[in-house]
Amino acid sequence: MSQKVGKQSIAFENGVYIDAMASIVGKKEGNGPLGHEFDMIVEDPKFGEDNWDAAESKFQNETAKLVISKSGLAKESIRYIFAGDLLGQLIATTFGIAELGIPLFGLYGACSTMGESISLGAMTVAAGYADYVMALASSHFASAEKSFRFPLEYSNQRPYSATWTVTGCGSVIIGKDKGIAKIEGITTGKIVDYGIKDAMNMGACMAPAAADVIYNNLKDFHIEPDYYDKIITGDLGYVGQTILIDMLKERGIDISDRHYDCGIEIFDNDEQDTHSGGSGCGCSASVLCSYILKQLEKGYWKRILFVPTGALMSPISFNEGQSIPGIAHAVVLASE
Amino acid sequence: MSQKVGKQSIAFENGVYIDAMASIVGKKEGNGPLGHEFDMIVEDPKFGEDNWDAAESKFQNETAKLVISKSGLAKESIRYIFAGDLLGQLIATTFGIAELGIPLFGLYGACSTMGESISLGAMTVAAGYADYVMALASSHFASAEKSFRFPLEYSNQRPYSATWTVTGCGSVIIGKDKGIAKIEGITTGKIVDYGIKDAMNMGACMAPAAADVIYNNLKDFHIEPDYYDKIITGDLGYVGQTILIDMLKERGIDISDRHYDCGIEIFDNDEQDTHSGGSGCGCSASVLCSYILKQLEKGYWKRILFVPTGALMSPISFNEGQSIPGIAHAVVLASE
Repeated sequence: MSQKVGKQSIAFENGVYIDAMASIVGKKEGNGPLGHEFDMIVEDPKFGEDNWDAAESKFQNETAKLVISKSGLAKESIRYIFAGDLLGQLIATTFGIAELGIPLFGLYGACSTMGESISLGAMTVAAGYADYVMALASSHFASAEKSFRFPLEYSNQRPYSATWTVTGCGSVIIGKDKGIAKIEGITTGKIVDYGIKDAMNMGACMAPAAADVIYNNLKDFHIEPDYYDKIITGDLGYVGQTILIDMLKERGIDISDRHYDCGIEIFDNDEQDTHSGGSGCGCSASVLCSYILKQLEKGYWKRILFVPTGALMSPISFNEGQSIPGIAHAVVLASE
Repeated sequence: MSQKVGKQSIAFENGVYIDAMASIVGKKEGNGPLGHEFDMIVEDPKFGEDNWDAAESKFQNETAKLVISKSGLAKESIRYIFAGDLLGQLIATTFGIAELGIPLFGLYGACSTMGESISLGAMTVAAGYADYVMALASSHFASAEKSFRFPLEYSNQRPYSATWTVTGCGSVIIGKDKGIAKIEGITTGKIVDYGIKDAMNMGACMAPAAADVIYNNLKDFHIEPDYYDKIITGDLGYVGQTILIDMLKERGIDISDRHYDCGIEIFDNDEQDTHSGGSGCGCSASVLCSYILKQLEKGYWKRILFVPTGALMSPISFNEGQSIPGIAHAVVLASE
């Protein structure tokens, strides 16, 4: 029986599993420390398409087809897709998954989208609304840069607090069959706004939301950080990591010995000049659907808290002088 | 017990209800044929804010606070919000509902968002994950025009197939208490792409998706159109209505005697020069949360199919020459 727990969490007690995973990333991600973990590395940043946006759609399309193939299921068995990306009106998703002809719940949680999609997917399967669903999220360095920052041709200087948007896509199939890892629970995040307005310091924008959802996860489930082998944020980077650890320490919680950030790990900053680390929906999604789930599958980690982190910014709100609020969604994943 | 039905539907057999509703619209909508149905009409299109985007956020914020007030619940009883809008990265939602401090699932389904938010909200309540959730969607004429079409100052000519984006917001509280109407089931839509590229003819872009989800609703539940007193689309307008009725006739289904389109009804085209009709997330959301739910509450209609319709377009994909696919999500609503 699944049930609500505390103020903003749900426990899945009747068994919901990640049955299959797939990840496809770009060349720079393939050259990083986790390069050997991904299913496919695409050398051409345009993936054979005419533009960056269409390329991101192709990352989604190929990852979706790959995860279905790896699951051994017929496409018709996937009842719903929960998916999203960073681009305006989710165009990477629209043109990426339309061809599959599977009912879609389009989601926007900025870079927290993989947490949101797995949360809703697990809720759907646990309630018996579907036998299998797909959760998916993507980002692309070039489509994101031109949407959110500057045209690439402008070659702007990047401050050390800036992150590098990951080109990649990760996807899982969620079902009731024992598989790669068990989804034990979720904690859904609130928007947290500390008034930060620096689009070149997304880590600082997102860290308060990550701290809030981690705090509430521990509180709702009445646990301490050592309940988890790792507490894994999406793309806080070095700057955001420091803030997160400090903010939780102020509330008497020390996660410094078990914090892992996908953005920090996906690139080698010394070699790859990525400054604060990787970012984007595709960062946490691709690292989850490769390295992280493999650690759980092999039993190296028993239980983790996966916390993709999103910065709720658009070029419009940014140019109108608005702050950049954060949101983060937490998923409890366990080795079987 | 709730259960999956057919290929893409869910039946809620254990009672999920719309417990409260609220709608706030702009001046033009207030002057339309349904003007007396809405909770509040705001004369100032900027709603006291500095820009159109912030104004749309204020429509969301005020509507959310009003629906909570009308429900008689404490804010803390609303466990999750399912919400979205049309703007890039959902900024109307971010800045509209952040203040409430309620866990958020951000959704993007273009103008179908109210169908998506009610679907996921009902799934959540029926499964026991929450006692009460909020579903909400908004749009604003001016924020949408500048995002998707032309700057207002340009005063472009609008073809007769163009629709007029509704300035407004609608919101419901979904729970297990008997209330305004019962949510009996949902049918979740697929992306349907007929290759149409005319951003001034959104009705034609969306009609195939509406036809597909209505067809599958009837098939999944083994029913005929006369199961419903009304089949209500979101914002197909006059052009889309004709296409929808024709497409379903080709499949042997006649809905012409019971089709109602929120976009056609919200404005008086002869008096208000709105061409094909109203559109936007706020169109179906505000008409649902006023006129439609009142007809069910009073028992004038016994059962309806509510089908908000979305055109999956962004300025980027449009300028890159992509088509405008459609999506629609259906909700079965019944008088108690």
